[in-house]
Amino acid sequence: MTDSRLPECGVARFLTLLNGPWATLIVRELLHGPHRFNQLREALPGISPHTLTSRLRQFERHGIVTRTTYAQIPPRVEYELTPLGEGLRDVLEAMGTWAMDVPDPAADVAV
Amino acid sequence: MTDSRLPECGVARFLTLLNGPWATLIVRELLHGPHRFNQLREALPGISPHTLTSRLRQFERHGIVTRTTYAQIPPRVEYELTPLGEGLRDVLEAMGTWAMDVPDPAADVAV
Repeated sequence: MTDSRLPECGVARFLTLLNGPWATLIVRELLHGPHRFNQLREALPGISPHTLTSRLRQFERHGIVTRTTYAQIPPRVEYELTPLGEGLRDVLEAMGTWAMDVPDPAADVAV
Repeated sequence: MTDSRLPECGVARFLTLLNGPWATLIVRELLHGPHRFNQLREALPGISPHTLTSRLRQFERHGIVTRTTYAQIPPRVEYELTPLGEGLRDVLEAMGTWAMDVPDPAADVAV
């Protein structure tokens, strides 16, 4: 057993696979379809190229995303969810549905 | 509109309400029932008292957790999920179910 093994607890394993808010937001974008690297950067203002590269490589390593290079000039590279990655649609929908039920205290003050 | 308002996007809103891995792991523990502060600390090795206090206050503020003080000597304080917080059970189950379908690359190497 090494530190690089995934946790046995499902929730802890999820938090290792989708670590930090950017990982989940990248998946949210990819659920709309394949994206190029720069399309993801534009869709996620504030993400650093380093973080985006790191998360995409991690997703590839775990079989969540595929990286396809199209032989054209200039070469085109697209990132796309695998069927395993598509399985995150239900998780993100559950997150979003729950979160939209939470009242916004700041909005209450504003009314 | 101020910075303290919750995001309009459900997924981003979720990531604001449950920010960082500890928030989700605290909820995982509270799904087993009410806990005292020190019970949560013991269940979550590595969490700092500052982080635990901060997350619990944030959960109280958003109506996810209640804090109940029992008038006894010494006073007993318990944290418990509200019905809104209980709604996270489905989200965490979805996370865990998905994550357990992801093969562990390190485990493959070990076999």
